[in-house]
Amino acid sequence: MTELNHDLPDTDSYNPAASSLAGHVDPAVMAELLSIRSSIDNIDATLVYLLAERFKATQKVGFLKAAHRLPAGDPGRETAQIARLRRLAEDAQLDPAFAEKFLNFIIGEVIRHHEAIAEDHNAAGGTSNGTASPTAPLTA
Amino acid sequence: MTELNHDLPDTDSYNPAASSLAGHVDPAVMAELLSIRSSIDNIDATLVYLLAERFKATQKVGFLKAAHRLPAGDPGRETAQIARLRRLAEDAQLDPAFAEKFLNFIIGEVIRHHEAIAEDHNAAGGTSNGTASPTAPLTA
Repeated sequence: MTELNHDLPDTDSYNPAASSLAGHVDPAVMAELLSIRSSIDNIDATLVYLLAERFKATQKVGFLKAAHRLPAGDPGRETAQIARLRRLAEDAQLDPAFAEKFLNFIIGEVIRHHEAIAEDHNAAGGTSNGTASPTAPLTA
Repeated sequence: MTELNHDLPDTDSYNPAASSLAGHVDPAVMAELLSIRSSIDNIDATLVYLLAERFKATQKVGFLKAAHRLPAGDPGRETAQIARLRRLAEDAQLDPAFAEKFLNFIIGEVIRHHEAIAEDHNAAGGTSNGTASPTAPLTA
């Protein structure tokens, strides 16, 4: 399902028609499939850039918390966030349970990175220069 | 920044200032924290609506595949998707490993729902009326 093909000679090229179904499907059906997939690809690119922006924001929160020695987690905030996302999901006709699972996935990732960053901060004598890796988000 | 209304009694209200830190933090620091969180909340709402749209698209793919008895998974497609998202993540300064993990999370969710829908389709004699639950996405 999710194995990367490390043998691809040109890693920069993307083939939107890449499919194990190619040649085995009626061309009209394949055309419809590719049309929908084109929208999915656009949505996925948007999701990636949006997630990058979210992690930039949580990283700011992380530095703020580290600078003022505030606890990384905020249960009161997380409870409110989850309840809100579930309501938004219902409005969007998205499974609220999935929305909650999604937020927990993000928060889990954030917390996983947090420990390492907190250690970096302490190792630097408790000062933050705000230049940590952009791939190291913190809980918000 | 963010309007607060602690007096709203109904459970639909969202308090953007909900925090276990309330009252324990310097007001200026709290104000900065809430300002960043306000952006995170906007991003999260966008993510929810975007994910809802993505699942609408994968559901279309699911019905198309069911109608033409095509396999649910498409390893060739998934390999290309992951490689592309990793490149986009690098461009967005998001951890590529996280982007891959994120796509796997989404695909995993999609596949989890797929089995149930395929069963529904078969139980209906192989016909699809396109009215399945919006909360039941399929792999794309």
